[in-house]
Amino acid sequence: MALSTEKISEIKELRDTKNLTRRVNAPELEKILYNEIPLLDHGFIRVIDYMGADSAIVQAARVSYGKGTRRVSEDKALISYLMRHRHTTPFEMCEIKYHIKLPIFVARQWIRHRTANVNEYSGRYSILDKEFYLPNLEHLASQATNNRQGRGNTLKGDEAARVMQLLREDANQAYAHYEEMLNEDSEGKKHSSARDGLARELARMNLTLNYYTQWYWKTDLHNLLRFLSLRADSHAQYEIRVYAESMLNTLKRWVPITYDAFMEYEYGGARLSATALKVVKNLIAGKKITQKNSGLSLREWAEVMETLEQNKND
Amino acid sequence: MALSTEKISEIKELRDTKNLTRRVNAPELEKILYNEIPLLDHGFIRVIDYMGADSAIVQAARVSYGKGTRRVSEDKALISYLMRHRHTTPFEMCEIKYHIKLPIFVARQWIRHRTANVNEYSGRYSILDKEFYLPNLEHLASQATNNRQGRGNTLKGDEAARVMQLLREDANQAYAHYEEMLNEDSEGKKHSSARDGLARELARMNLTLNYYTQWYWKTDLHNLLRFLSLRADSHAQYEIRVYAESMLNTLKRWVPITYDAFMEYEYGGARLSATALKVVKNLIAGKKITQKNSGLSLREWAEVMETLEQNKND
Amino acid sequence: MALSTEKISEIKELRDTKNLTRRVNAPELEKILYNEIPLLDHGFIRVIDYMGADSAIVQAARVSYGKGTRRVSEDKALISYLMRHRHTTPFEMCEIKYHIKLPIFVARQWIRHRTANVNEYSGRYSILDKEFYLPNLEHLASQATNNRQGRGNTLKGDEAARVMQLLREDANQAYAHYEEMLNEDSEGKKHSSARDGLARELARMNLTLNYYTQWYWKTDLHNLLRFLSLRADSHAQYEIRVYAESMLNTLKRWVPITYDAFMEYEYGGARLSATALKVVKNLIAGKKITQKNSGLSLREWAEVMETLEQNKND
Amino acid sequence: MALSTEKISEIKELRDTKNLTRRVNAPELEKILYNEIPLLDHGFIRVIDYMGADSAIVQAARVSYGKGTRRVSEDKALISYLMRHRHTTPFEMCEIKYHIKLPIFVARQWIRHRTANVNEYSGRYSILDKEFYLPNLEHLASQATNNRQGRGNTLKGDEAARVMQLLREDANQAYAHYEEMLNEDSEGKKHSSARDGLARELARMNLTLNYYTQWYWKTDLHNLLRFLSLRADSHAQYEIRVYAESMLNTLKRWVPITYDAFMEYEYGGARLSATALKVVKNLIAGKKITQKNSGLSLREWAEVMETLEQNKND
Repeated sequence: MALSTEKISEIKELRDTKNLTRRVNAPELEKILYNEIPLLDHGFIRVIDYMGADSAIVQAARVSYGKGTRRVSEDKALISYLMRHRHTTPFEMCEIKYHIKLPIFVARQWIRHRTANVNEYSGRYSILDKEFYLPNLEHLASQATNNRQGRGNTLKGDEAARVMQLLREDANQAYAHYEEMLNEDSEGKKHSSARDGLARELARMNLTLNYYTQWYWKTDLHNLLRFLSLRADSHAQYEIRVYAESMLNTLKRWVPITYDAFMEYEYGGARLSATALKVVKNLIAGKKITQKNSGLSLREWAEVMETLEQNKND
Repeated sequence: MALSTEKISEIKELRDTKNLTRRVNAPELEKILYNEIPLLDHGFIRVIDYMGADSAIVQAARVSYGKGTRRVSEDKALISYLMRHRHTTPFEMCEIKYHIKLPIFVARQWIRHRTANVNEYSGRYSILDKEFYLPNLEHLASQATNNRQGRGNTLKGDEAARVMQLLREDANQAYAHYEEMLNEDSEGKKHSSARDGLARELARMNLTLNYYTQWYWKTDLHNLLRFLSLRADSHAQYEIRVYAESMLNTLKRWVPITYDAFMEYEYGGARLSATALKVVKNLIAGKKITQKNSGLSLREWAEVMETLEQNKND
Repeated sequence: MALSTEKISEIKELRDTKNLTRRVNAPELEKILYNEIPLLDHGFIRVIDYMGADSAIVQAARVSYGKGTRRVSEDKALISYLMRHRHTTPFEMCEIKYHIKLPIFVARQWIRHRTANVNEYSGRYSILDKEFYLPNLEHLASQATNNRQGRGNTLKGDEAARVMQLLREDANQAYAHYEEMLNEDSEGKKHSSARDGLARELARMNLTLNYYTQWYWKTDLHNLLRFLSLRADSHAQYEIRVYAESMLNTLKRWVPITYDAFMEYEYGGARLSATALKVVKNLIAGKKITQKNSGLSLREWAEVMETLEQNKND
Repeated sequence: MALSTEKISEIKELRDTKNLTRRVNAPELEKILYNEIPLLDHGFIRVIDYMGADSAIVQAARVSYGKGTRRVSEDKALISYLMRHRHTTPFEMCEIKYHIKLPIFVARQWIRHRTANVNEYSGRYSILDKEFYLPNLEHLASQATNNRQGRGNTLKGDEAARVMQLLREDANQAYAHYEEMLNEDSEGKKHSSARDGLARELARMNLTLNYYTQWYWKTDLHNLLRFLSLRADSHAQYEIRVYAESMLNTLKRWVPITYDAFMEYEYGGARLSATALKVVKNLIAGKKITQKNSGLSLREWAEVMETLEQNKND
């Protein structure tokens, strides 16, 4: 949905106001501060505020009076060391705040990350906008066959068309009846003077889970990395993954050294179980290992082989 | 909804199994362990497990080798003291775990209490049951007029009937289309072999917010008291308040001394602002105080007067 | 202790660097950013960074696109309302980071506030400075007689002198032996080539609890207020209270509207138990209430009378 | 230190009391409930209470009415899956509570794990016992030479003797002066009527960091595993590692299936960075890889080689 003129001017006003500060700055993140980064059909993320940058991690790790180190190369080495050895507390010294618009069923997954601060738009106070999520046709997929959760093939033809029709019609109808039950518009004007109108906190229950909500979401860098590690993962549901991937871009602007360390040690790395580690050692030693003599279950064997084979061209 | 025979026999099996333990016991809570306590039209709470009892609070406060004290009167005095002076950590030494079935819009309020452990039924793995919340006619209320949130008068006659009809029909239709899109039943059998069926993680977005979900919810006693303080309050939405009130009963069975202290110091107590405290002192001194000379806003004055007048018969 | 020239120049460098930012600014807090605020004999607090200001609380409470409101009076009314009704999440949207130097026995009380981020100077990595806390004579007090914790009268004459001597001599001796066991100075140079020197992680155990440590400590505004509410309280130990009181001043510079609301509703307010509330109502009604017919214990009666009598001149 | 007769009888009384409960039991853990497991020279851990067992993890993961599954093999498969895929919330459904006696410098490391509940013996209320930690001669080690933290070789002969003497004498002297300043014994009797005695909250600052403190410590299973993962690690300081290793034994008694999964996937497993993973793939492919062409730093190369070579006999 296009932003209203009012919202555009509010964002412009915030962006045009510049203050002198003694605080650490993240210049690349400043460039996009307050801007909407659109996602899905009506969603977005906006970076609203941040505290600290790569240098603040170093400064805290050293408990120093001034900046942590004098040279970028030292910062890089220290941040890599901290990430590799799971010294997580220095990463907690940076903080970021987003304004996010997202479908309710995505919000319900997201909120499970508890170490964040949240203020959500309230359906008890306010009337929700008429905006609901409809997947693109390419994302309308069947249930995965090899997995209790996740998606398989894309639906085709009549079936896809019918699904789209049902999702759209039910969402539209739910909203029409929501409005009817409320009997008032968002300015509080009654549609019909003959009816009292249902309380907002009740009427909202008629909306479907693909309706959009929005919230302010604030977290420290360490917990942001854990969120991204789980939600930018290929096993995450597509609709939350697009948010996590977009946030990876803001991460890169904010703390580029930490971003690189995260990609190297966490996001692009791998975990091996004790048994998988033995398998790897035997493979390196040139021994012939099969699933049968590996000590791994069929499923784990497949997972380990996928880990070892991925990016074949490396 | 009546419990299925299978569920009843599962609960019976759990209840019939008794073990000898050296752990502290809460005899009154044991009596209802695993039982369903029905709420709203299809919801419930069940106490599944607990750790500690009143004596464990005393024991922890004293960091003692054995039980904390020898006499119940000492336990009472200490627990009162801890509650009054906000020494909250000893209350964290007790833990309780509930199995709860609740409408999704209630779950969304509930989950905002972050210092709890939660496992929710997953709509990515499983098909949700066809159970949705419909308010009783007496709870179908209009928007409050003196408050941006909350409820006013009960709807009447045709308007109430129309609201009930809309809520019921939309929820039924949403579920019918959910099933059609899934194209499989809960045992995984396809309705039509001509269609692939939409992935569960997508199809669920068509359900309305009054559908029931369920979860295991575990918290320590201190955070349970904070939850109850906010959610058993008269300002809480009715649909979450009925859960909190039912949990107050389980609290009384579990830790009766703490329950009494909570009712005395927190639930039944009051907070006064600095200005309100001055007003109270002046009133006690027999001075004539009005809103105008009180230093309180109209709204705060009304709140303070309500606090001082409540329970007129005391 | 006077700051070393090196530290002074590090702080000056940070203060002299100013960046243009689009972020919300707190001008009064900027003025003291990075400066040391001395406390006790060798301690300090320094504000290192912050996120947000009063306007950010309003913005988050409204989940708004731009600033929350247009007028300061609206901000004040909303922040008062939020504080009064314990809507705490908007206050979590602001964050502050301190660099703090404090005696170890104070650090051990402080760290019990768990919802903060901490990086402490490590005695495994580094040699601790020779700086220990000695109370001023006026703070050398005897055990309180009316309370299991807390202080009574100030020690006098010979007894006070003897205590000062013991504290000083034991701390000095502990450090001399710490250095001897380490057998190296802070640049890693060995005192004696004939000895290996004890590992830092072991040698530190010889230091007394009045030695200073330092850390970076970061928290959100809501949890800062809870910390201040407990630690700026008259029941808190003097040595932690001076830190809390100094932080109250930084709070006032940072979020002046929130500071006022905190003083009004939390810090300067009072809590009444259910029974105390009845007593208050009866007193207002002109009834004769004594401890005996009040339903309050002797101790609670005294606490309630103290609450109602304080600031007699109001 | 030998337990006092009083404490022994308190523990015996707790152990002799058995109750019938409907709750899940952990029979092997019941056997040692309340018993002291001695550690270092005066420390101990005692399991005081627990909630849940392996079956509770399964039950929560399934959000089931009864037990989670019917067969142990299913429980094993599910718990392995959850551990492997970092589905951590079901492990939060179990809780354990310890009573722990430990040196203060160990307590200061321990308390950094924030997601636990703690009640510590208070030096403001009570007089601390005269018990301090002295390392065994075999653990008196020099500073590591290859690492800024950690230990190297064991000290020998005169140097070791001198260190032991200093630690013992300083701790003894600190306590003697602590007692003198307090001017009262633990029953509150004054040593000298001519002196007031220093407040306990002040006198304690004269004690050295090897004095023992004690606390009740309660955590959920997920956070216990994270604690053990970091503190039973070879990089942890010896004095905290002995606690973690002893707790591993209690873990095995409590949740044997989870214990096995933890050893397989976390404790005995390995993490590879993106670059290290490439190295492994190339080694398996039979390519000649050296540190120079590996893309790894010298230090990381050494770490990866150690990971791949460890347990050469496997």
